[in-house]
Order: sequence, then C-alpha cells, then structure tokens
Amino acid sequence: MVTEKLKGRDFLRLQDFTKQELETMLELGLQLKADNAMRRAHDDLLPRRTLFMMFFNPSLRTRNSFEAGIFQLGGHGHFLEPSSTRLPTLEGEDMGYASERISDVARVLSRMGDAIAIRILGDVVGWEYDKSYRIIEEFAKWSHVPVINMEDNKYHPCQGMADAMALWELFGKDLRGRKIGVTWTWGSSPKKPIAPHHDFLYMASLFGADVVFSRPPEMRIDPGIEENIKANAAASGGSYRVSETMEDACENADVVYAKNYVALDLLPPVTSQPEKDEMVKLFGKYKNWIADEARMNLAKPTAQYMHCLPCERGAEVTNGVLDGKWGEACFNEAENRLHAQKGVMAAIMH
Amino acid sequence: MVTEKLKGRDFLRLQDFTKQELETMLELGLQLKADNAMRRAHDDLLPRRTLFMMFFNPSLRTRNSFEAGIFQLGGHGHFLEPSSTRLPTLEGEDMGYASERISDVARVLSRMGDAIAIRILGDVVGWEYDKSYRIIEEFAKWSHVPVINMEDNKYHPCQGMADAMALWELFGKDLRGRKIGVTWTWGSSPKKPIAPHHDFLYMASLFGADVVFSRPPEMRIDPGIEENIKANAAASGGSYRVSETMEDACENADVVYAKNYVALDLLPPVTSQPEKDEMVKLFGKYKNWIADEARMNLAKPTAQYMHCLPCERGAEVTNGVLDGKWGEACFNEAENRLHAQKGVMAAIMH
Amino acid sequence: MVTEKLKGRDFLRLQDFTKQELETMLELGLQLKADNAMRRAHDDLLPRRTLFMMFFNPSLRTRNSFEAGIFQLGGHGHFLEPSSTRLPTLEGEDMGYASERISDVARVLSRMGDAIAIRILGDVVGWEYDKSYRIIEEFAKWSHVPVINMEDNKYHPCQGMADAMALWELFGKDLRGRKIGVTWTWGSSPKKPIAPHHDFLYMASLFGADVVFSRPPEMRIDPGIEENIKANAAASGGSYRVSETMEDACENADVVYAKNYVALDLLPPVTSQPEKDEMVKLFGKYKNWIADEARMNLAKPTAQYMHCLPCERGAEVTNGVLDGKWGEACFNEAENRLHAQKGVMAAIMH
Repeated sequence: MVTEKLKGRDFLRLQDFTKQELETMLELGLQLKADNAMRRAHDDLLPRRTLFMMFFNPSLRTRNSFEAGIFQLGGHGHFLEPSSTRLPTLEGEDMGYASERISDVARVLSRMGDAIAIRILGDVVGWEYDKSYRIIEEFAKWSHVPVINMEDNKYHPCQGMADAMALWELFGKDLRGRKIGVTWTWGSSPKKPIAPHHDFLYMASLFGADVVFSRPPEMRIDPGIEENIKANAAASGGSYRVSETMEDACENADVVYAKNYVALDLLPPVTSQPEKDEMVKLFGKYKNWIADEARMNLAKPTAQYMHCLPCERGAEVTNGVLDGKWGEACFNEAENRLHAQKGVMAAIMH
Repeated sequence: MVTEKLKGRDFLRLQDFTKQELETMLELGLQLKADNAMRRAHDDLLPRRTLFMMFFNPSLRTRNSFEAGIFQLGGHGHFLEPSSTRLPTLEGEDMGYASERISDVARVLSRMGDAIAIRILGDVVGWEYDKSYRIIEEFAKWSHVPVINMEDNKYHPCQGMADAMALWELFGKDLRGRKIGVTWTWGSSPKKPIAPHHDFLYMASLFGADVVFSRPPEMRIDPGIEENIKANAAASGGSYRVSETMEDACENADVVYAKNYVALDLLPPVTSQPEKDEMVKLFGKYKNWIADEARMNLAKPTAQYMHCLPCERGAEVTNGVLDGKWGEACFNEAENRLHAQKGVMAAIMH
Repeated sequence: MVTEKLKGRDFLRLQDFTKQELETMLELGLQLKADNAMRRAHDDLLPRRTLFMMFFNPSLRTRNSFEAGIFQLGGHGHFLEPSSTRLPTLEGEDMGYASERISDVARVLSRMGDAIAIRILGDVVGWEYDKSYRIIEEFAKWSHVPVINMEDNKYHPCQGMADAMALWELFGKDLRGRKIGVTWTWGSSPKKPIAPHHDFLYMASLFGADVVFSRPPEMRIDPGIEENIKANAAASGGSYRVSETMEDACENADVVYAKNYVALDLLPPVTSQPEKDEMVKLFGKYKNWIADEARMNLAKPTAQYMHCLPCERGAEVTNGVLDGKWGEACFNEAENRLHAQKGVMAAIMH
C-alpha cells in the first residue's frame, strides 16, 4: 500500500498514477465497502469537508455516488450546474456577465471547500475531442484543492476504478489468464462517449487480462491510449488483440464489455464540426453488433456482461442479457462507483 | 403500536397499511415533533442514510419536508430532477441516450442508498390517470430499498398522513362525532391533482369522522377509492355522505377541507387526451364554489379551514379565510408533512 | 461585543444594525475562520438546523458559501430555485397554480426550518429598483425565523460584511487614514447590480476610511444610501468625496474597488421600463474606465484591487491587475463570504 504521495493530488487520469497507487485507492475503497456492509461508520474520515460537484452534463450514477460518498465520509457535496452558477469559460470564450473565467471560479471554490469534481463532455464543448479535458486541466491549474475528473470526452477514471473493482471481485486482483472481451456495439444516437471504453481497457490491461477488443474498422479508439494499453499488457503479462468481428471478443470470454461509442473520425478535430448524420449512417451498417444471448453463449458459462450504464436496451444489449444471468456484474460495477470514489476521496483529500 | 412488519416496506398507498400500522407511524412522527420542540436530537435514527428524492414536478412542501426530515434523522436527501439525470422510462418508451429504463435506475439507486422517493403526476405523464402510479410501482418492483410515493395522479399518502396528524391535534385520535366537510372549489387552471382529496377523505373516514363531501355533479372522485372511504366509515363508526351543494359540507362543520381538483371525466383514460379547454369551461359554471367567510360562518365557531397548499387565493379560498381565524390548521397541516414523513421514514427504512 | 439583541433578528440591510453589532458578527466570523484554519470543528453551533436558500438568480459565491457555511455549523442548506418550487409572488401578481403567495411560502418554510435566505434582483423583477427588496421584506413579514438578504437590487449586506472583513485583514479594524478608492468601470452588459457598491461604500465609511468615489456624471448611486455614507464618514472620523475622474479614486489609494454597475436613471421607477440599449450606449462613452496596470500604479505600491466577483476581464479589470500583485485581496474578499456569513448565522439563528 503506497500512500505517501496521494494527499493533495488531483485525480484527472488513470495515467497519472502508478499501478500501486491505483491499487491502494481500490483497496481503501474495498475497506469502506466492507464498512458499509456492516454499517460501520466512517464519517470521521473527511468531517465537514465540502466537495463541489460541477456537472455540465446529466448524470445519475456519478452524481449520486459522489453525493452519497462524500456524505458517508463526513462531508457534503454541492450539486452545481452551469445554469445555476454562470458558465465557467476559458480565456477568449467569455460571455460578459453570463460567464466567469475558470481561473476565478477555481480559485474561489478552492477557498471555500476541499475538492472540485467536474463532468464535461459532448455537446457542451461541441464534441471537440481534447477541449473538455483541457477545461478540467484549467481548473486543476488554478485550484488549490484536488480536482477530480468525473468524465470528459477522453477519460473517465472514476469509472475505470469501479470497473477494476468489479473485475477484482469476480477474479481477484490478478487478471492473468482471464479473457476480457471488449466490443463496440450499435447505438441509435451519435452521443455516447468513448471515455468508458478507454479506461476499461486501461484497467483490464493493467491488471494482466488477455484483452480482445472488437470493433468495426471505422471505430478506432484514441491511438495514444491504445499505446498505453499495449504497454500495460506487456508489463503485466497480459495481452491485447484487436479484431473486426464481435464474436472474437465474446468467444470463451470471462467478461464481455459491450457498449456503443462515437466515431472519432467524424468529430473535431478530425472534422470541422460533429458529423452526426454521417455517424448515425455509419452506425447503421453495424446494427447487428449487439450483446445478445447468442453471443453471450459463446462466452464461458460463468461469463458476465459489463457496461458502465446507462445502456440502450435493444441497441447495445438485449433485455435477456442484462436482466438474465449475465447482468449482475453490471450493477456491481455501478455500485462500485460509490466505493471506488470513496477510496479516491479518502486518499487524496486533506 | 404495531411495528413488526414495517421495516423494509414501501410506502406507496395508505391502502397498503392497516389502521394500526398507520397509527404507529403517526405516533412515531408525533414523538419526533415533540423532540424537535425540545431540540432533542434524533440524528442517530438513520445515520448516514441516503434518501433519493426524484421530482418530476415542482414542489415546495414535499421537497423541503423530506430534505429537512431525513437530515434531522441523520441522513441526507438527494434532490433529483429528470433534467439533471435522464428520464426514467417504462419499457416501450425509451428515448435512446436521453432516457434510462426504470428497472436500471431503480437497481442502481437501491445499491447506492437507502430509500427512493418519487413524485410524478399531471402533464409529465400526459394526465394518464393510472400511469403515474404504474411508474412508481415499477420503481418499487426493481428497488431493493423502500420506495416512497411523494404523490401521483391518484394517491398522496404522505399528505394523508399529515392531514391525519393535523386532525388528531385538533380533536384527538378518535374523530367520531366530528363533522368534517370536504368540498371541491373552483380553480382557474385544469391542473390541480385529485390525489389530496382522495387521501384526506381516506383518513377522515378511517378515524371515524362524519364526512360530508360536496362537489358539482361532474366532479366525481375515483370510484374505487370511494368504496374504500365507505368501508372505512362503516368500520370506524363514522359516516360518508355526498352532496352537490357546497353549503352542505360547511354547515356545522368542525373542519372544512376545500380545494379544486381536475375532472376525471375529461382526462385519459376516459378521454383520449386531456380536455383542458373543456375543463376550464366546466369549472366556469361553478365559480361561486369558494371557501369564503360567509360559508365558513356556517361552520362551528371553532371550525378550521384545511387545504394541502399551495392554494389559489380568490379561487379556492379568500384571503379572509386563510389569513383569518380559520387558517391556522392549514399551516399545521403543512408543517406536519415534516413530522409525519419522519415517522414513516423512521419506521420503514433500515 | 454586543450580542443581546441578535438572536432571532433578520439580516436584511447593514443599516438595520449598529456598528457594534456588525463588529460583533464580523468578530464571530473571524473566530470561525481561525477555527477552520486549525480544523477545529464547530458543528455544534447550529446542529441539525435547516437553512432555505432561495435563488431567483444565478450564484457561485453566495450559494457555495452559504451551503458550505451552514454545513460547517452543523446544519444543512436547501438549494431552492423558483423553477423547482413555484414562483413566490406578492398579492396581485399570482399566476394560478404556477405561483404561490409569499405569505404562504414564508409561513410554511418557517415551520420546516430555521432561516430563509433569498437572492432576487435584476431581470426577474423587471429591474424595478425597490421591488426586489420589497419581496424580501414580505418574506420577513411572514416568516417566524430569520430572513437573510442574499442580494437585491439595492442591498448586498453579506457582501458588505465580507468586504469589511477583507479590509480589516489588510489594515485592522480602524480604517482612519486609509484611502479607499471606489469607482465605476465600464462593462459590456446593462446587468450588473449596484448593490455591491452601496454596501462596500457603507462599510468603508463606517470604519473611518477616506473614501474617494469616482464615476461618470450619469452614474449616480442611491441618494438615500449616499446620505448614510456621509453620516458614517462624519461619525467615524473618515471622509467621503465624489469625483468624475477615475484617476482620483486610484491616486495614492490603499485599495481600489472598481466595478461596473447599472445606471439607475435608465431603470424603473425613473423610466417606465429598463432602457438597456440606452444604457449600453451610455456605457460606451466610458469604455476607458477600466482598472488597468497604469491606474493601479497610481495607487500606493502595496495597494490591492477589490471586486466582489464575478468580474468582466477586459472591461472592468485587466488580467494583469487581477492575476498580478494587486489581485490577492479580491480572493480573500470572496473567501470571506464564507466566514462572515457564518458569523451572521451563528449570531442570529436560534
């Protein structure tokens, strides 16, 4: 358990932490999960601390897990939406009295509370791929208290932590020898972020799984993150293979992670603006990419389906899969948002 | 005091509980009201518990009484609006990435917290009479933690509890021999739910009052609930009489409960869509149905006016009645939302 | 320290309190600031109390400082927006089921909690100068618990308290012999309230500063408040001088408070409706009124820039001033919202 450099750190990307540091925060989270199971109080860990939760996008899991989590640790979360404050903006994007420069928002909040968590992605940044993370970085630059990334266009590290915790609970910490199938699926809207795939793949490879990732040829992930994943696999004794056939991910898998995500090549900066109609058309070629019972039956008999939720039933996954014997891990994964994030907060917040 | 079957129960309808069980929860609520009066802390009752409060409609009393109530019990309420999450939907009504199936929302929330409270009625369900309760039932079907009905088109059991507590405070638990006048009044908009009338009548009859209910011939209540009321009156030694003259409810009454509500015969499923213009026209025939000083003077000298609030002054009730000697019970009734709901939460939440 | 008449009082205007009473609340706030610096808990001061925070306008500092502040004192704040409740209205402005009379809202809330804080100004009252304060007064008239003014068109007493605390921290309680320059600046929108200027001037004069206030001839402040300021200066041994040249405020100043505000002569009741286009045109004549490095260099070498924030960079102040050596006081001023308001709440709430 490596703890000496965690207090006061931002939690922006899994890539900013060593494997041991991520393990430490997951182990803390699991201890707090055990505490909850026994109703053992731990509200003395972050007593009277304030967590600002700034949501530029809707949220069910992220908001409720952070708000419940900080409360269980003794603190209080403020649910903030831009419509109720003013829009925090980068230099050059000010809108008079309707906006406030991020440098000022971050400095003010960091004098009034103990951490700032931010979700920003998709339409609110015109789907500019790098921009949402740049905004979170700007908060981190000016804040004196830890900044937590609650999802941007590229990263969703809190989800990655919950995913890893769910995988640990299925197989133990060492995923070597486990086949984790990861796949793109069809979806009806051109709006689902790619960040959850990135961080699920990051974590599965970090802990040594044999990862098979299937997606249509046009549905590449971020090349830099793909390099991280390959390096993880090499270092951990796992493997990483890409396929263009969904069945490759499913066959003999211990877990099938199947979800839709946007086409990076139809979004800025590749295109000048989001090509949503093109994307829906492109997706239409792959309507049969769905996690259904037939495909899940290709996996091991004990296999579990995973998805960060919310899922689009009938597009990404069938009712039979999610509500059947394969679906339990999905809800563990959702619940673990609470526990994993509590581990992170307890580790990094002063 | 009957407590053995309360822990873990949903609180969806008054009809789901025995008279003794309802009495128990009211008595618990009164104890907590006394605690508050003496500033005696009781935040050890539900320490660190999370209550999800999902509001599809605006709310002043319900939201603030639940949020303050769970806090006084040691927990924390999350104020959730569909615009900040995604719309929870029944099967067949999914809207891609903008909605999430209730089965999933309920399972996720019940893993992150300790109870789910829901308000849904009126426009948001197209005024389909049974649909809003069906949605709450769907939450209850999938949730592992208690679900609390914060009002649907048909039921408002938390209001019924507060009403009963206010009546007890006026007359004691035994309402036999008390005349409770209940009446429809005029209102300018075709939007006021009928649920508060249903549950006020249910409670007044359950505790033995002589209920006189006056409304224009077109303004019937739910026939199934009317059967419940008659059965209550028969079992409790009270009585139930319907009249088409407002004065009948007021004459010699101990309490006059007077409020507007929608015409069920101008809403689905009777009609294919809400006939709002028709309803405003129909209401126009009965503009003189208002709780005014003249009518309140027909009641006993000590009589009180009751209404769940918000009321439409000048339509449902005059300023003189609400702000005069008749109005105090109305605000006791509102305050008792806090205490009665605390009794319910303390009884059913683990 | 004068405390005997504070419990149960409303906090509506600085003018409602004696200098000693304001000092007392500031001293309490400073003690709580020191507690925070040492992580000394003081959640036993207002345990389980509920603060209703009703925002008709967006807010970052006010909302977060009140919500964090009441939590640190042991209570809980409800973040209320009219869209989630119904619009609280004065008599004669009811909107059927979409609004609720303030007399009723105030009475209901004061039975469910321990204080009601309200922000209302600008567009939501059609910029009618006196109306927003009249609405807050109406709440206070009906509420049984303290009402706190979180800013109206005319007053922003919580900001005045934070300003005074920041001035004390720079110079000590006695501001005699200190030159405080206060000035109007250009701004791009006709939306910035004048209330912060009023209450900054009130406090600077109350504690004996030599105040020089510069603004274009058309940009007068409220004449009644200007009388208060003159009386303060006379009583405290300070001075108050008005100029039409921005440099007069800056020269040799210890502090330069520079901010845009609306033209009272282009708003009701002087005009029949807000003359926004006229105001933007008027402002355009004074585009060079900005707190820039050149002007700050006219002040003392140790001078600080102050502004209640959010500021309009490039219009009210340059990046170089706010992010340079002059800007620190501005963020102390913002932070002190938290501490000063805690002092107020701890003093007046039961």
